[in-house]
Amino acid sequence: MTTTPGAPPDATTGSLRIDRARLLDRIDALARVGAIEGGGVCRLALTDEDRAGRDLVIAWMRDLEMDVVIDAVGNVIATWGGDRSRAPVMCGSHIDTVRTGGKYDGNYGVIAGLEVVETLAAAGQPLDRPIAVAFFTDEEGARFHPDMLGSLVYAGGMSTETALELRGIDGTRLGDELDRIGYAGPAPCPGVVPHRYVEVHIEQGPVLEAAGITIGAVTSVQGIHWEEIAIVGRSSHAGTTPMAMRRDAAFAAASIAVRVREITAAVAGTQVGTVGAIEVHPNLVNVVAASATITVDLRNTDRSALRRAVDMLGVACDEVASSESVDITRRVTADFDPVEFDPSMIDLVERTARDLGHSVQRMPSGAGHDAQMLARVCPAAMIFVPSVDGLSHNVAEFTDAADLEAGANVLLHVVLREANGDPA
Amino acid sequence: MTTTPGAPPDATTGSLRIDRARLLDRIDALARVGAIEGGGVCRLALTDEDRAGRDLVIAWMRDLEMDVVIDAVGNVIATWGGDRSRAPVMCGSHIDTVRTGGKYDGNYGVIAGLEVVETLAAAGQPLDRPIAVAFFTDEEGARFHPDMLGSLVYAGGMSTETALELRGIDGTRLGDELDRIGYAGPAPCPGVVPHRYVEVHIEQGPVLEAAGITIGAVTSVQGIHWEEIAIVGRSSHAGTTPMAMRRDAAFAAASIAVRVREITAAVAGTQVGTVGAIEVHPNLVNVVAASATITVDLRNTDRSALRRAVDMLGVACDEVASSESVDITRRVTADFDPVEFDPSMIDLVERTARDLGHSVQRMPSGAGHDAQMLARVCPAAMIFVPSVDGLSHNVAEFTDAADLEAGANVLLHVVLREANGDPA
Repeated sequence: MTTTPGAPPDATTGSLRIDRARLLDRIDALARVGAIEGGGVCRLALTDEDRAGRDLVIAWMRDLEMDVVIDAVGNVIATWGGDRSRAPVMCGSHIDTVRTGGKYDGNYGVIAGLEVVETLAAAGQPLDRPIAVAFFTDEEGARFHPDMLGSLVYAGGMSTETALELRGIDGTRLGDELDRIGYAGPAPCPGVVPHRYVEVHIEQGPVLEAAGITIGAVTSVQGIHWEEIAIVGRSSHAGTTPMAMRRDAAFAAASIAVRVREITAAVAGTQVGTVGAIEVHPNLVNVVAASATITVDLRNTDRSALRRAVDMLGVACDEVASSESVDITRRVTADFDPVEFDPSMIDLVERTARDLGHSVQRMPSGAGHDAQMLARVCPAAMIFVPSVDGLSHNVAEFTDAADLEAGANVLLHVVLREANGDPA
Repeated sequence: MTTTPGAPPDATTGSLRIDRARLLDRIDALARVGAIEGGGVCRLALTDEDRAGRDLVIAWMRDLEMDVVIDAVGNVIATWGGDRSRAPVMCGSHIDTVRTGGKYDGNYGVIAGLEVVETLAAAGQPLDRPIAVAFFTDEEGARFHPDMLGSLVYAGGMSTETALELRGIDGTRLGDELDRIGYAGPAPCPGVVPHRYVEVHIEQGPVLEAAGITIGAVTSVQGIHWEEIAIVGRSSHAGTTPMAMRRDAAFAAASIAVRVREITAAVAGTQVGTVGAIEVHPNLVNVVAASATITVDLRNTDRSALRRAVDMLGVACDEVASSESVDITRRVTADFDPVEFDPSMIDLVERTARDLGHSVQRMPSGAGHDAQMLARVCPAAMIFVPSVDGLSHNVAEFTDAADLEAGANVLLHVVLREANGDPA
């Protein structure tokens, strides 16, 4: 794909650029909080590490003289400039990570938002609308299901009361953990409806790198379905229990995991499916397992295909329950339909990337993002930059500095055009 | 099967019987140490609970004026009566349990041994040979692999030095845990070679109950093969990673577990196979697993069939490693050939059971037992009593009081005939 360097729409603002070194320094500084071996980060939502990361980002926000507001589920929204009587143009993402996360997932979008503010402040740029930089609680959902929890509550898709009662994988109550780390804020949810929401994020997949493209103009986000499947069998002696008399919860768990893989092949298309967590009890070499729990993650950009995959999972569970004489209980912990982003904002992202001299292509998102929740209440869009080897949720997650800089500059100019009215 | 009440071989000794109430009281008292919900017991080897159980049984041994010796791997051997210059007739079993164990597995054999001593003492029974009651360390192998560890070292099948360096599933060193609970004793291993070894045990399987038989005269113990299989894949994002690019350690683990079940069907006969433990890392809903570990337990009474199953497991691992692009490392943690018990002792068990008026049948053991290790150094045998529903390694493990009494009486008269010479 060729790029079309267009004339900047405005000679003054068109020349503004974020500071690459400052962007990278902040990404590295945040990555030192909860750093793990191999260059990765572990800041599961509402842990001590998450608190330390939050404190650092808020300190940066205050250094930029932004007005920081914390809401009832711990979302942090920092506002700067413009006419405060008008709805802000919001950017941002999340700073929680999975257990073996990288330093870019989420963090990049928040820190790029700070770059937007600092660049505009340094240039003395006049703004019609305020700019808000947000980071949302528990986007990963790795500790508290569902994922994108903070932005879901912000957008009114779940009540604050329901969210506060959620239990984490460690048995803790979300409201208690929020109190414990001091991030139960006074602002109500649902929150202020932004004029626009735009989020820059690493792709977390292999598409842009494979195509040699710098910027992805994200058109949609795939639908997602999460379940926790609890299996109750009967513990017995691994030596003396004839195979035909077994009610083996571990075997049932393994069978369902294998069936999930078969479902992805049968549904095909963009269907992906993952059993990421398996717990077995009593988990001993010589005991047929009494019980097991697994998680299933199914995603598809096509709503009806995703429903078909979920139905097939149900059939698989029924068949395994019957053949192994185990009890299976399914609990849906997340279920979001595919989301289409705002066509005019997708156009703006694409045009802005071209104006700045970057290659760009339209693409769906393989992952879920806070932007899909904000899309419920305002026009929203996303900007992707390439992930080396398509890796994410991995300590080796990496994006080239030039690509991080490019994405942040696209964010800068999209935000600026939305804040002051798109002159194009 | 009909029973043949034979004339007791000796009018005086033939009328001796153990005390059912005392037997049951001691079983219940020991089961209160490390009791868990549902009537079960958790006394994993060399834990604080195991120490408390050991202390209680040794107190009973001392009450019976037995000479208690503790060896270098924590085996406890208590000797009573007879000519101490002669090799003892040994009975016993183990008192460690799995994490969700019952109150009879192992414990019954040790407490029945105490009944033998107390019954003979009360009767003032003269003895040629001493009687020893032993309980061996870590028979279950649920904390430290391999299973039957203490009796293996006692019989010279593993050096004390090797045993002390073993690492448990919790990372602890066996020697350190032995010191910690105060059970690193002064007696050397291998230990004193007994004249005979006989062990009464619950069947832990469904055979006797199904046949309506009270006593099993155990002819052999199946061979056993344990492995720990470590899988290294690559963690990545569950939404964005195309199925074809995955190196999913959890899926590989599940695939091997399903293959183990297929192997048992293919080898058939007495072949059983179990994946009892599965660990996945990072174990999160939205992350393709980076690594996983599973255990495999394969057993067969036929040596060559067991080897065939192990070979098939190797093929399965190779195929999964290749198809999922994961690295698989296999580590054998136990590997014991099938054991045949002493023919004359099997005859004695069968004859004694009949003499006492009990139904009896010859049968192989589905589980491994300390008796198979003692069979390396002296003639050995086992006496089985029925397990209700064939359940063991389960809190609901149960054997009728009448059957427990019957088995202990068979033990009493087998031990007595071996100590004073079998008059039959």
